[in-house]
Amino acid sequence: MGTGQLATLIFQGFSGKIYPIHPKESTVLGFKAYRSIFDLPEIPDLAFMVLPTDIVVPKLEECGRAGVQAAVVVSGGFREVGEAGLERERMLVRVAEKFGMVVIGPNCIGVSNFHIGMNTTYFPYQQDPGEITIISQSGTYSCHVYGYTRKFGMRLSHTVSVGNSAVVDLIDCLEYFSREPHTKAIALYIEGLRDGKRFLRVAREISQKKPVVALFVGGTQAGAKAGMSHTGALGGDDQIYEGVFRQAGLIRVRTVEEMLDTAWALASLPPPAGNRICVLTNAGGPGASMADSCNREGLEVPEFSAELKADLKEILPHTASVSNPVDLTYFMDLRAMYERIPRIILGSDEVDGIVMYGVFGSLLYRTLEEGLGGRIKYPIDEVIPLVRELLGKFVCFPREYGKPLIVSSFWGTDDDALKQIADNGIPVYSSPERGVAAMAALYRYGRYLRGFTED
Amino acid sequence: MGTGQLATLIFQGFSGKIYPIHPKESTVLGFKAYRSIFDLPEIPDLAFMVLPTDIVVPKLEECGRAGVQAAVVVSGGFREVGEAGLERERMLVRVAEKFGMVVIGPNCIGVSNFHIGMNTTYFPYQQDPGEITIISQSGTYSCHVYGYTRKFGMRLSHTVSVGNSAVVDLIDCLEYFSREPHTKAIALYIEGLRDGKRFLRVAREISQKKPVVALFVGGTQAGAKAGMSHTGALGGDDQIYEGVFRQAGLIRVRTVEEMLDTAWALASLPPPAGNRICVLTNAGGPGASMADSCNREGLEVPEFSAELKADLKEILPHTASVSNPVDLTYFMDLRAMYERIPRIILGSDEVDGIVMYGVFGSLLYRTLEEGLGGRIKYPIDEVIPLVRELLGKFVCFPREYGKPLIVSSFWGTDDDALKQIADNGIPVYSSPERGVAAMAALYRYGRYLRGFTED
Repeated sequence: MGTGQLATLIFQGFSGKIYPIHPKESTVLGFKAYRSIFDLPEIPDLAFMVLPTDIVVPKLEECGRAGVQAAVVVSGGFREVGEAGLERERMLVRVAEKFGMVVIGPNCIGVSNFHIGMNTTYFPYQQDPGEITIISQSGTYSCHVYGYTRKFGMRLSHTVSVGNSAVVDLIDCLEYFSREPHTKAIALYIEGLRDGKRFLRVAREISQKKPVVALFVGGTQAGAKAGMSHTGALGGDDQIYEGVFRQAGLIRVRTVEEMLDTAWALASLPPPAGNRICVLTNAGGPGASMADSCNREGLEVPEFSAELKADLKEILPHTASVSNPVDLTYFMDLRAMYERIPRIILGSDEVDGIVMYGVFGSLLYRTLEEGLGGRIKYPIDEVIPLVRELLGKFVCFPREYGKPLIVSSFWGTDDDALKQIADNGIPVYSSPERGVAAMAALYRYGRYLRGFTED
Repeated sequence: MGTGQLATLIFQGFSGKIYPIHPKESTVLGFKAYRSIFDLPEIPDLAFMVLPTDIVVPKLEECGRAGVQAAVVVSGGFREVGEAGLERERMLVRVAEKFGMVVIGPNCIGVSNFHIGMNTTYFPYQQDPGEITIISQSGTYSCHVYGYTRKFGMRLSHTVSVGNSAVVDLIDCLEYFSREPHTKAIALYIEGLRDGKRFLRVAREISQKKPVVALFVGGTQAGAKAGMSHTGALGGDDQIYEGVFRQAGLIRVRTVEEMLDTAWALASLPPPAGNRICVLTNAGGPGASMADSCNREGLEVPEFSAELKADLKEILPHTASVSNPVDLTYFMDLRAMYERIPRIILGSDEVDGIVMYGVFGSLLYRTLEEGLGGRIKYPIDEVIPLVRELLGKFVCFPREYGKPLIVSSFWGTDDDALKQIADNGIPVYSSPERGVAAMAALYRYGRYLRGFTED
């Protein structure tokens, strides 16, 4: 497993130095290997320990003596296996305290910081670094999700698998990432909290500065039992956790997908100042779905004033609906669609944000051209530079108008236009309803910042 | 637009003959074009009409006189534009009645039957044909979703965009697909129903034979308004629709993604005989999430008997949890994971179905091997044939044991093993919670079949 995790570190293009320590090998994956921490040419910043359980504590002690200030202990066999492991974990804590070491784990997957190409998990992260940090009581959710985030275009800053939290716990990480500059939103996966009061105090302070999303799975009988056997975490009454999250200003979510969706919006966009949303679409079904979802999520889809309708009517064809939802139908004026109409709507004082469906780049046309072996030719090469230019401005609208703009698409970032959007700070959700759910989460966070703690 | 839709038909590899009719061109996309329906060498089975509004009715009349029995009218400008359109639509209906023609539309995208390579929408479907049929009051949901289904591996049989439903409506389609043999589950997208009583009567009969999923978006103020401006559909009180769906035995869903997820499970798997679910995982986080979601969705995660635990303990390592969730942890005995353990669990009378997380094929290892340029070598070529063989049996378990088996994965069908599973009838969901939600829908459908109409 250690070799596998080193492989990922290499894969990720870690920018620092790597010194494998191995009892027998003279090289590991091409790196010169050393016999012990004392043989290294310098004191490393971090010891990453994948060792048989019995020698973890002695080796951590050696690291301490050598002057290493931080360690990640992947090895299991501690608190999570019962009494014998608990004593071993106490010894580990004593060593950490003795040398003042920061220790993540034991029984964890590791830590990633994609801004320096550091990934000690066994999953490759194949995207650019981003602004979402995951702090997780599950190792899986700190790394298996890389395949998912890649598919959808949301990007991660850091991930931490806290494991047994013997020395550093989820709350410490929360404090750290509240100050870490790349992190714009924090996602927490929680099976159980040991110190609810401290969590509430810390989280309440942090959520004023940085949005925090919380997924808690220990509130049902089956969830609590599963968490207990996984990390020895004590789940608890769902209503109590609900109250803590609400008081702390955390955005609670129910699924891992919702956790990532929500963190994406919170990391990227300003919260809307109110709940008045414009549904902008070129397809009736998604328009109706988004409108319906808005109402279900506590968002309004207000009727526009006569003035705003008149402004839109000047630009739109007679087949379009200038009411809200604004349905462009088969409208091919790209400059109107991507620039003039959003500007008119965002510039009005009638809406607080836009959820949009209907962005298409060249994927559809290229696919058909290729499939027909040249029998049909679309004006892709003429249109794409214009789309690119327009979208270059489009992605700046949230900053420019101080209002969120969210896009949804069933094709997502497989398409060049949607990729440009997602890569430049506008989340692209895989369905109209998910875009609306993300907007609703943004609204709730904004409401919290304005001083409302209850819905 | 007509040319675009013909392009898709060609792309899809339609197995029938195509006769373009065009007023000026002598060929269209390489096909000899004809001046009128009367010039064709034979009477076509279907007229697909993309025409200026004004000539739709006269041309439909010509088709009728020529003996054409069925038409799809894509053109808009009918009921959805108000009074003038309504009269035009009445004329269209009279022509259809006069010649006894089956007409889909007007104001629709078209019809797809992937079993004969027929796709008259403007979106390419790049998968094998499947068993889910979508009947939709939105053209978008009958075709834009092809990019989505491809990404996730669910496969479609037919899609119908009913448009204004002047002649053939959603209920007629429902009746037709209840008898259509490729269709194993039907998904309905509904903005509003004109004849609730007839819908209830027909749907109630069909849902006893074939599962039907319903997405209704007209129950909120904003959703109803959007639907009205889209297809002129009258939404209605959400509680009334809820009651109709329940009485009719339809599985109601709230989002397009849930519609597809649910139809996938219903089309592929037998409903569980009860609500006792085994959570099978090799990762603690997804295990806890699935257990938690089960309880939230009304499913139980029962404690196993001492006998069943003992049977599992014989196979599993000491680090594994033989309780429910069954957490294999880092267990590498593939034969046990994919065959012996599922067989023991499904063969017991203690559970009614399995939700599973933790299937990995070669994608992870190939990615790392490539990324490290050969510096590391995994035994992929030795392991993959075994995985393939084991999964060949695994996918038969639902039929063999009469119990559903659902898999979830963040990588999905990008991975070879997960693709094999999805291609052979076991749905693979993009998150643990979605797998559980699909299992819960299956449970509710089974409960309905056993005579329960209320929760």
